[in-house]
Amino acid sequence: MKIDSILKFFVPNDTSFFPLFEEGASILLKASALLKTLMVSETMEQREMVSKQIKAVEHEGDELTHRIYQQLNKSFITPFDREDIQALASALDDVLDYINGASQRINLYKPKAIFPPFIEFAGIIHAAAGELEQLLHGLKDAVKNKEKIVQGCITINTLENKADDLYHNGISDLFEHEKDTIELIKNKEIFGTLEKAVDKAEDVSDIIKTILIKMA
Amino acid sequence: MKIDSILKFFVPNDTSFFPLFEEGASILLKASALLKTLMVSETMEQREMVSKQIKAVEHEGDELTHRIYQQLNKSFITPFDREDIQALASALDDVLDYINGASQRINLYKPKAIFPPFIEFAGIIHAAAGELEQLLHGLKDAVKNKEKIVQGCITINTLENKADDLYHNGISDLFEHEKDTIELIKNKEIFGTLEKAVDKAEDVSDIIKTILIKMA
Amino acid sequence: MKIDSILKFFVPNDTSFFPLFEEGASILLKASALLKTLMVSETMEQREMVSKQIKAVEHEGDELTHRIYQQLNKSFITPFDREDIQALASALDDVLDYINGASQRINLYKPKAIFPPFIEFAGIIHAAAGELEQLLHGLKDAVKNKEKIVQGCITINTLENKADDLYHNGISDLFEHEKDTIELIKNKEIFGTLEKAVDKAEDVSDIIKTILIKMA
Repeated sequence: MKIDSILKFFVPNDTSFFPLFEEGASILLKASALLKTLMVSETMEQREMVSKQIKAVEHEGDELTHRIYQQLNKSFITPFDREDIQALASALDDVLDYINGASQRINLYKPKAIFPPFIEFAGIIHAAAGELEQLLHGLKDAVKNKEKIVQGCITINTLENKADDLYHNGISDLFEHEKDTIELIKNKEIFGTLEKAVDKAEDVSDIIKTILIKMA
Repeated sequence: MKIDSILKFFVPNDTSFFPLFEEGASILLKASALLKTLMVSETMEQREMVSKQIKAVEHEGDELTHRIYQQLNKSFITPFDREDIQALASALDDVLDYINGASQRINLYKPKAIFPPFIEFAGIIHAAAGELEQLLHGLKDAVKNKEKIVQGCITINTLENKADDLYHNGISDLFEHEKDTIELIKNKEIFGTLEKAVDKAEDVSDIIKTILIKMA
Repeated sequence: MKIDSILKFFVPNDTSFFPLFEEGASILLKASALLKTLMVSETMEQREMVSKQIKAVEHEGDELTHRIYQQLNKSFITPFDREDIQALASALDDVLDYINGASQRINLYKPKAIFPPFIEFAGIIHAAAGELEQLLHGLKDAVKNKEKIVQGCITINTLENKADDLYHNGISDLFEHEKDTIELIKNKEIFGTLEKAVDKAEDVSDIIKTILIKMA
């Protein structure tokens, strides 16, 4: 047990983290919506424009993460463990980073066409972001929303499994059918970055689960 | 000195982490034995079957890591620093992740043949896992086993150097002699993942060394 | 507020970290100077020799990081937060790792020629290392040097933006003009490693900024 936990009995919780995490969730939702748009953009110019918008949203996320850390330094007592707040902020930021990473690679490598599974994959990322928004919203009153939070974590796990299959089949497909090695290299790396975004979304839900366990 | 260290003078140590780490070591040993089998499996079907077994072992590892973290949250006093327990659990899990990562890539990319150095490399990983098992077993009575632990860390360092040379020569060989670019891409990435597994095994031994230094 | 912060009112600071960080900065400067030399080395033999020197410098860095961690374990009170010292040491070590990683890849992959943008890129990394040296030197008297530190962080940010553009254009150029896929794979990966070195240098300056904010 840490000294923080002992002090919690005497000092009221600082709840100002919740609006910050809700802001993080809505930034993520915005980025993932743009990612969906990117995947159906037909011209290089459109893709460039959308990927610039995603980069701007990623900057918003960076600033938010910075504000959460500052808040952490100022707070005497936190609503849950300090490491968990930090882990949560950092994992949320990672999801955003990988969304931006995939988008920047599309803009940079200029694949001849968007590899079709990317469209469905972006949809899964967006759905996971929506679930995370619900989860982070529910965290404000975690005890009351326990059932809902557990359910949301299961949904994210299901989405991650779906993404995993899609990734698996897509990469097999690339290696079997893509005869242009350069295009294969491009799409393989973009796909790998997209896949990490989903992995990190599951990490966020795992951290939330841990927080819930500690509260029980 | 942290408050934990001060409290240690008054409260008996919780030793329940040792069986968990020994379980971690035996999971790792199982995964690395399967990796050796994978490298000598001749058909795609065999490889697919073995890589599924490795994935299942990796899940066991994930669950164990989770249990270690839960134990950490419940423990008032830990046998060594909290960060070290966490670092140890996380590095052990990383070795397993890279073993699984290499195995999944073999199953996914379907290289035409197993690149011969992979067989020896899997042997090195398995040998390192065996050393780690000894180290983690010795940690239960670290002061008594100090000499043995130091010796085991040296062995792992030697294995890592051997792996490094093997990797170095193998990659040079690939770039010089593999004329099929697609096969080169596959084998280069599988090799890179195998190499990280050995790196992480050395990280585990470094963490154990740190723990030993603190105890001195 | 952590127990450390409370104790700081009663116990004098341990300042022995500053010489260690200055040593870290000078190791980094040495490695980045060698990286510049590597990029203009004309024969494979010269490159091999320089990359061995870089590897030796990287080992120096590893030992230093180890000494910083040991110092951290022995210190009752630190000049700034424990996590920040650890983060600073680890980020400095990461810059060095990526410099060594790029250099080892050049030695290992043996690209037919050094891709021209690498020369300018190594110059940017060296300039960033020079700025970090000033920053880490200034940290010894952070309050007095505040203005200078802020200015140095801005310079590093400018260097990172320049590196970003150079990377962006270089990768586009590779995908458009490099017809030898094997050479493309080599240079793309070397470039990616160089780019991470600059990213990590910016991380170091971000950590320094955080330390400064806490002191204000």
